[in-house]
Amino acid sequence: MTGPHPSVALTRRAVRRALADVEPGATVVVACSGGPDSLALLAATVHEKRVPGWRVVGAVVDHGLQEGSAAHTAAVVRRMADLGADETLSARVTVDAGGLGPEAAAREARYAVLEQVAAHTGAATVLLGHTRDDQAETVLLGLARGSGGRSVAGMRPAFEVYRRPFLDVTLDVSRDDTVTACQVLGIETWHDPHNDDPGYARVRVRRTVLPVLEEQLGPGIAAALARTAAQLRPDMQLLDELADQAWRDLAAAADGATSGLAVESLAALHDALRRRVLHRAAVAAGAPASELTHEHVLAVDALLTDWRGQRWIDLPGPVRAQRAQGRLLLERPRG
Amino acid sequence: MTGPHPSVALTRRAVRRALADVEPGATVVVACSGGPDSLALLAATVHEKRVPGWRVVGAVVDHGLQEGSAAHTAAVVRRMADLGADETLSARVTVDAGGLGPEAAAREARYAVLEQVAAHTGAATVLLGHTRDDQAETVLLGLARGSGGRSVAGMRPAFEVYRRPFLDVTLDVSRDDTVTACQVLGIETWHDPHNDDPGYARVRVRRTVLPVLEEQLGPGIAAALARTAAQLRPDMQLLDELADQAWRDLAAAADGATSGLAVESLAALHDALRRRVLHRAAVAAGAPASELTHEHVLAVDALLTDWRGQRWIDLPGPVRAQRAQGRLLLERPRG
Repeated sequence: MTGPHPSVALTRRAVRRALADVEPGATVVVACSGGPDSLALLAATVHEKRVPGWRVVGAVVDHGLQEGSAAHTAAVVRRMADLGADETLSARVTVDAGGLGPEAAAREARYAVLEQVAAHTGAATVLLGHTRDDQAETVLLGLARGSGGRSVAGMRPAFEVYRRPFLDVTLDVSRDDTVTACQVLGIETWHDPHNDDPGYARVRVRRTVLPVLEEQLGPGIAAALARTAAQLRPDMQLLDELADQAWRDLAAAADGATSGLAVESLAALHDALRRRVLHRAAVAAGAPASELTHEHVLAVDALLTDWRGQRWIDLPGPVRAQRAQGRLLLERPRG
Repeated sequence: MTGPHPSVALTRRAVRRALADVEPGATVVVACSGGPDSLALLAATVHEKRVPGWRVVGAVVDHGLQEGSAAHTAAVVRRMADLGADETLSARVTVDAGGLGPEAAAREARYAVLEQVAAHTGAATVLLGHTRDDQAETVLLGLARGSGGRSVAGMRPAFEVYRRPFLDVTLDVSRDDTVTACQVLGIETWHDPHNDDPGYARVRVRRTVLPVLEEQLGPGIAAALARTAAQLRPDMQLLDELADQAWRDLAAAADGATSGLAVESLAALHDALRRRVLHRAAVAAGAPASELTHEHVLAVDALLTDWRGQRWIDLPGPVRAQRAQGRLLLERPRG
């Protein structure tokens, strides 16, 4: 007696573990690009649905960014049906790059339509096919930004209605596993030409940076990066919860927005919490989170921990941070 | 009027900031290898000592690992005196690689002798010349191990009697700065042949990995890695403090070592703290911290959060973790 190929078994086990709490008869949406990750995920989900009797919906999003994207989308729909999806859906979105980069804009449009699909089908969850290699790339890109623990913590294995079964760090599902699973199962997969475009930082990380790291520091670097992300995620979550609480307490103690926050209470907080609270206070005062850097926060922090009579700190927004009469004021400058 | 060269000014400013609380007349030891980092640090410290009137002691450690190390050590002593150190010291250590790697063994021997120097001279602090580039290398080596936030948090700018003025992340002192400062000041520096030996992972990171990261992800990667480390350091410190507290509370509530820890109390802790507490509990039961991996901790954690009647978990030591009658037992197996 032979069981399924190890890579196939691994993808199935990942789905079984990630969906252990999904009720029998529930609807499960699998987001498919047509690449090996998402098709291996769909195949595993279709296999695992038998016992709990889930309804599996395959969903493909046409970003309309490439020539022939409509024909490609139709081909993915056929493949999802061939794999045994109970229902298939395709949706065309319009990507408005606007202020975002093209990757971020496409992602935003994709999640917006997947949310509609989830609502429309009454889905218990929407599955995404990211593997530990995507996670390793995300961690390295976060490191390159230098924006602290949250970016190194990478992608969440579950958030809102979404789950990423292949990010289970104890199973360590790699891109190679999904490619192998598709080959073994005879699933034809699509190769996204964007994945070869070195104009994307993510492609450069995948094709150059990670191989050099493997070569110089030994194999297993992608798994190591994914493990670090998995360890950092609950850490960052707890610190954010503690900072939320500290910020609520301080804001409640402050007598109206204009009276500012007590320097004494802020200074009594641990460095890790005080800097998070200052970030929240600056955003609450009108500084856009996307423009507020750690250096801004450190400059405000110096008004508390390295007070030498500084005049004020200008933050994006614009918001001005100033210390006066034992209070820290964060407000839009007048005039 | 012209001031000092920017790199020279930067090294001096770093010393001034890091030593702001050091009393006038105190003794400050600068650990010198003879390389540009430590000689730039010594020069900056000698310059900054004038106002507070510190006594500056230059100390060089001869590891006896390379041919001619005694002559090299004597040359460093002369250079330290030329630079204006009030006193110079050299100490020969015997490096016993034993179970450690050669780098770790040399480091251990070096710190042991520096501690003696600090005690002997009554030093307020011992300064180390690590720059943000050393920090970036440490972060990447930590990432390659995949051992979570603590290793990504890198080297501490201050610990015990030691301070690393060049790790001030707001000043961002690079290796290039120390090399330039030495050139501008006419200080002859020593090039450690170990720094060219690709047998060391750190050398491969410096010479291959970081340049590839810079080339593929843009300049500033070393600074970004150092920034991330600086942000993670207080985070990890607070989480460790909270875990220490939770562990003390749980251990106090446990009725003697053999009764184990209440599953209910452990399960009520946040993931980030529970895993740290389990690590402490395993070490307290006799598992060597150096052999206890995050995977071990996760396996013990599954006895709490994914209980399916598992028999027990074997940990290094050996220590056995077992769940029985609502308690988690960690003990050496009998027999």
